[in-house]
Amino acid sequence: MQLGFIGLGKMGGFMVQRLLKDKHDVVGFDLSADVVKSVAEKGMTPSSSMEDMVSKLKGRKAVWIMVPSGKATEDTVLKLAGLLNKGDIIIDGGNSYYKDDVRRSKELKEKGICYVDVGTSGGVWGLKNGYCMMIGGDKADVDYLDPIFKTLGPVDGYAYMGLHGSGHMVKMVHNGIEYGLMQAYAEGFEIMKASEYKLDLAKIADLWMHASVVRSWLLELTAEGLKADPELKELKGWVADSGEGRWTIWEAMEKDVPAPVITLSLFERFHSRRPESFAAKMLAMMRNQFGGHAVKK
Amino acid sequence: MQLGFIGLGKMGGFMVQRLLKDKHDVVGFDLSADVVKSVAEKGMTPSSSMEDMVSKLKGRKAVWIMVPSGKATEDTVLKLAGLLNKGDIIIDGGNSYYKDDVRRSKELKEKGICYVDVGTSGGVWGLKNGYCMMIGGDKADVDYLDPIFKTLGPVDGYAYMGLHGSGHMVKMVHNGIEYGLMQAYAEGFEIMKASEYKLDLAKIADLWMHASVVRSWLLELTAEGLKADPELKELKGWVADSGEGRWTIWEAMEKDVPAPVITLSLFERFHSRRPESFAAKMLAMMRNQFGGHAVKK
Repeated sequence: MQLGFIGLGKMGGFMVQRLLKDKHDVVGFDLSADVVKSVAEKGMTPSSSMEDMVSKLKGRKAVWIMVPSGKATEDTVLKLAGLLNKGDIIIDGGNSYYKDDVRRSKELKEKGICYVDVGTSGGVWGLKNGYCMMIGGDKADVDYLDPIFKTLGPVDGYAYMGLHGSGHMVKMVHNGIEYGLMQAYAEGFEIMKASEYKLDLAKIADLWMHASVVRSWLLELTAEGLKADPELKELKGWVADSGEGRWTIWEAMEKDVPAPVITLSLFERFHSRRPESFAAKMLAMMRNQFGGHAVKK
Repeated sequence: MQLGFIGLGKMGGFMVQRLLKDKHDVVGFDLSADVVKSVAEKGMTPSSSMEDMVSKLKGRKAVWIMVPSGKATEDTVLKLAGLLNKGDIIIDGGNSYYKDDVRRSKELKEKGICYVDVGTSGGVWGLKNGYCMMIGGDKADVDYLDPIFKTLGPVDGYAYMGLHGSGHMVKMVHNGIEYGLMQAYAEGFEIMKASEYKLDLAKIADLWMHASVVRSWLLELTAEGLKADPELKELKGWVADSGEGRWTIWEAMEKDVPAPVITLSLFERFHSRRPESFAAKMLAMMRNQFGGHAVKK
């Protein structure tokens, strides 16, 4: 089917390629004209602006937005809403906070515009493996877009979660869990690294992929990463976060649900970004105050 | 090849079946004569005692021990050592603490008996999928046992880790990681359970198995468990632990490696077994003391 697509970056560009391979008619736009040009070479209909993109869509229009969450998504949705007609559909496939979806879907409904939120997992591997999609919105709108989801996902790789926001809500928790899984592996490997046994960590990660209880896709990637650089010499132990972990913890607090491991996993990332910890200085100072314990200057 | 096998329980019994299917000659013993009888019906040579078992082994003898860790394993190793000859091999395939392996291997070396420690993962699924094995000991002894490992493991499913104790050391950390992975999933699903969206948790677990970043074997089992009992009505939220989590944390402390998520994952299991928490009573009491805050009686 025909689909407008805004945001042809790392995720969006690959998603469009997957759609093109399955003969969908994608009209794409990106702030970078060079990016538009390079994806157009793979069969996408290029456009020079959102207005231009919308003018090239026929009938009931559907536009997939794949831009950074927050202001970029908000601005894009608002501008796009001004260009679409009643009954048209805006799909936010990025990592929006689900409460923004709830608000936006209400605002758009007043204008007669439909809104579907899609939590999209799979990273840069999605082009090959397909994207796992968690979908929220009115069921009829989601059903209308089924040909798109069928192409983007692997078999059984997408599902309707519920009303507006539920797609991103489930994706948010998915990412919170991901933080915890990653931290558990990371701690275990650091413990093994500290052992007197000269353990071959790449070999262990690879071994565990064969019938062990901890096998997972993250472990598979871990094995490949350790094989390429067994001491991780090429990296700094500096870890970013992109929002979903925090929102998962907000959600846990709002519902009085204890989530200590997901919370600590986020805080360990903060630690990684604060090698000179003021809290650690506080502890050293207090030990010195009450016990005269040695400090390092 | 010929192998003695002590302990034909949940893990051991299935392992022997896997060995028998591949035409190994297994002489088995278990404290329960009924269990010995039932496995013998599948082709195992039965024995009525450890002495009887050892008498039925020829040439360089190798005996696999698969009994509960701690005293049961220790007693079995000691008794068996008294029955074996120089050059024979004792294999501890259970979940022993790796420092016990180090000690035992030294004691046995004085008697000329070889010792191999095998961390074995795969649970009750090992019969079908094979067991992932982490192996410690003298390389020559491990090589001698290769036909056994080849049968028990899937392709590439076993590997030599290093000297005595390293097999169980790696298995210990494997299980510590497992605690963290499980806790991360558990917290995420409880957050989703608390949502106003009536989320279908079984559907979500199943969906995530298709190309999502958090897909894993544990998630696959989770999806099956939730499908069978979506509200987990048949279970109490009471979780045991069997040692490896604690040992992983000891190891982390011995090496000054922070392992907050693995540690908390164990402590959350303690929580599950202490619904009437004295610490929570302490908090309620203190809030009442300083602020007159309401308490529940």
